[in-house]
Amino acid sequence: MGVVIPLEDGKNKQASVKPLVDLTRADMERVNQLILSKAGSDVQMIPEVANHLISSGGKRLRPMLTLASASMFGFTGDAHIKLATSVEFMHTATLLHDDVVDESDLRRGKSTARMIWGNQASVLVGDFLLGQAFRMMVDVGSLDALDVLSTAASVIAEGEVLQLSVAKNMETTEDDYLSVIRAKTAALFAAAAEVGPIVAKTDKASRNALKSYGMNLGLAFQLVDDVLDYGGKAADLGKNTGDDFREGKITLPIILSYRRGTQDERTFWRDAIEGGNSTDQNLEKALGLITRYGGLTDTIARAQHYGTIARDALAPLPHSPWKEALLEVIDFCIDRVS
Amino acid sequence: MGVVIPLEDGKNKQASVKPLVDLTRADMERVNQLILSKAGSDVQMIPEVANHLISSGGKRLRPMLTLASASMFGFTGDAHIKLATSVEFMHTATLLHDDVVDESDLRRGKSTARMIWGNQASVLVGDFLLGQAFRMMVDVGSLDALDVLSTAASVIAEGEVLQLSVAKNMETTEDDYLSVIRAKTAALFAAAAEVGPIVAKTDKASRNALKSYGMNLGLAFQLVDDVLDYGGKAADLGKNTGDDFREGKITLPIILSYRRGTQDERTFWRDAIEGGNSTDQNLEKALGLITRYGGLTDTIARAQHYGTIARDALAPLPHSPWKEALLEVIDFCIDRVS
Repeated sequence: MGVVIPLEDGKNKQASVKPLVDLTRADMERVNQLILSKAGSDVQMIPEVANHLISSGGKRLRPMLTLASASMFGFTGDAHIKLATSVEFMHTATLLHDDVVDESDLRRGKSTARMIWGNQASVLVGDFLLGQAFRMMVDVGSLDALDVLSTAASVIAEGEVLQLSVAKNMETTEDDYLSVIRAKTAALFAAAAEVGPIVAKTDKASRNALKSYGMNLGLAFQLVDDVLDYGGKAADLGKNTGDDFREGKITLPIILSYRRGTQDERTFWRDAIEGGNSTDQNLEKALGLITRYGGLTDTIARAQHYGTIARDALAPLPHSPWKEALLEVIDFCIDRVS
Repeated sequence: MGVVIPLEDGKNKQASVKPLVDLTRADMERVNQLILSKAGSDVQMIPEVANHLISSGGKRLRPMLTLASASMFGFTGDAHIKLATSVEFMHTATLLHDDVVDESDLRRGKSTARMIWGNQASVLVGDFLLGQAFRMMVDVGSLDALDVLSTAASVIAEGEVLQLSVAKNMETTEDDYLSVIRAKTAALFAAAAEVGPIVAKTDKASRNALKSYGMNLGLAFQLVDDVLDYGGKAADLGKNTGDDFREGKITLPIILSYRRGTQDERTFWRDAIEGGNSTDQNLEKALGLITRYGGLTDTIARAQHYGTIARDALAPLPHSPWKEALLEVIDFCIDRVS
């Protein structure tokens, strides 16, 4: 029943983040320097905890979005470096708090900060990084950028609380779920991309274009992440997969499979997710149902839908290597799954 | 060995917060309205958790400081209302996170939010309130006020991490302890008082005066709080007292008693605080030692020292009912203990 989606539609090669990495390389050096400097403190535990997460090998996609979305309008200076660093700190603070909230032991295969330094340090160092992020924004001095990023901070937290409220409730709809990921993931992508044109003092239309690009890229990114948690399109469980199921986390593959299933299958889902009966055997069964009902392929289809909106958002902007790199990132985010 | 400090030195009546409450009554109405409105969200759990803490009967001293420190320079408008609300939200967010960090069950005799809604909600609603605080500051549009408050946010978190680092370490000096309370408590008092003159666009000297007033008032306030945790000057343990000892929290009464004690007594303190042996019997013994070495009376003497600095900080400002009310608050904070 799953629809097969041609992933390489109109493209000849695997999309890559490399053009964006290359274009932002020099600026990302400056961001990395600033990250180290602003995560510093005489209180020794702060750089220890911060660097644990900062050095954990994330792609730093969000700060690259800020750099690219400023540079594509010819901006040079310091402001985008500081805002990109702020964005990365906001993201890092969220991860630190998320791990406490989710009681996670591992992130990207490494022990989480809370397992090494405790929940206390994770909460407080997160607060510190958020404070440092706001200080850098204030230092830039753009009230518009401050507005966008402080609103994002509120919206992200609101989305996380919303996720708590819908947690382990199998009646969660696709719309409910979209509200959650729009707030907890896509809002920061949108803000990261919108502050570029703001500091570049470009027109309102370009600002809106980048905001829409970021928002829809963020949705696609999160949906694909949710598919990857089940091992990707092939539902091939390996290391670090199946975590969402084990934690009783409801993502779109489950929502689709639950709603499309039989009464008996819905009973199974409620037992597994609401009842916390997430054994390995039940994970195998869940994967079977998800595959049968196209839970993964259709989640990818949704991601492609948002990817297309992101692409169209940038369409009116003049051609440039920056624009091409940002467009390729859309495909890169989605192609991760294939 | 304890030194008896005449608390009513030069005063004929018990100092009161009432003049400040009366002067800020109309503005505090507006602050309370704004608190309710900005703690609102479609995500039902957010106002529930926020209102639990907001309605818990705190004195709201910090927002009153902001209102008074703007009004005393003739400021009328909205900015001080928004900043006072931001200050209260920053404080509320800190309390929510503190309760998670300290694993506290009770605050002011009521169940903490984390006991009712869980650690997750406490962390995330705290993040939400912090985000809302920043949005209100951005709305005011003063980069100077944003600078002061965002710096305070970083410093507060840094102070909390520092407190973790020195926790259960009996070698903590009075200076170490002052660094902690300067950051975790006094910095917000200082910022609350400093943003008043900033929005009132007064001179740098007045701004510095209010900042120094707030900082030293905050130190006195925290030191007296630490004495109150041991039942006040009379070391009279009742409900909600002795919590610091039970949690192994090192405050100035313990620091003084430890340093002034015999080798055997220091062994007792290390066992009780570092070893976690905080039985009721040991609390009785601790109180005996604290009384013998003047731990409470001398902590009050330190509070009076900072209270005097706060008083002198305001001295050059012209006489006004606002100034009188702020000066009386210093004595009020210290007299709580008698």
